Amino acid sequence: MAAETMQPSLKILGFVNNDIRSLSEAPKGYDESDRIGYLEIFTEYLEGLKGIEAGQTIMVLFWLHESSRDILKVHPRGKREIPKRGVFSTRSPVRPNPIGVSELEVLEIDGTRLKVKGLDVVDTTPIIDIKMKI
Amino acid sequence: MAAETMQPSLKILGFVNNDIRSLSEAPKGYDESDRIGYLEIFTEYLEGLKGIEAGQTIMVLFWLHESSRDILKVHPRGKREIPKRGVFSTRSPVRPNPIGVSELEVLEIDGTRLKVKGLDVVDTTPIIDIKMKI
Repeated sequence: MAAETMQPSLKILGFVNNDIRSLSEAPKGYDESDRIGYLEIFTEYLEGLKGIEAGQTIMVLFWLHESSRDILKVHPRGKREIPKRGVFSTRSPVRPNPIGVSELEVLEIDGTRLKVKGLDVVDTTPIIDIKMKI
Repeated sequence: MAAETMQPSLKILGFVNNDIRSLSEAPKGYDESDRIGYLEIFTEYLEGLKGIEAGQTIMVLFWLHESSRDILKVHPRGKREIPKRGVFSTRSPVRPNPIGVSELEVLEIDGTRLKVKGLDVVDTTPIIDIKMKI
């Protein structure tokens, strides 16, 4: 298969449920967010959550479905006074694969529903992976 | 669109070029690797790299193309003496979306070729994103 035509498909694991309704309301990064909400994971992935406990920090990968995939240069943090840079030297949600990576504190876990703190993504954002923080 | 049928496609940005030839040779994590190699990015994404400089630490997302997508419980770090846990409570490459996240030191950058230190993935692994480390 030619490299350029290989396009792996992602599985959606679940969705964010929180009160951030628009990108303009979202914190610029998890490191400056204390927003609380839920990761609602589909039941078929329940087994994969065993071992996650309240008090842990998890790394969560989101599919930033509202972000452009065709822009390669941006003003860092959206600040027009900073010259444009390549998206790969920023944390902009705008990038060829709009994947967001956040480190979140687990407050509670109830089956497939994780209450977490530090959210910087909007309600209904798809979740594509969860890992332990190194 | 029903949640379960939404399957975003990833764009491959380039490939790893290093001397790790098999999974058994690969370090268990970037945090215990001093392996040096190259991120070879396709020319169409050159603009996105502007701003990355030697000495920086970048977060790189890989598509772990050799990993199973159908296993939800594993022995952490492959150690059989540790009871199985859910993949989302580990850093196992085995998971529904086999995305690896590494933090790598940039040693040199020459156009679309980045020499990096800390690699824990095998030669020819697809690269799907690069971000600044927070």
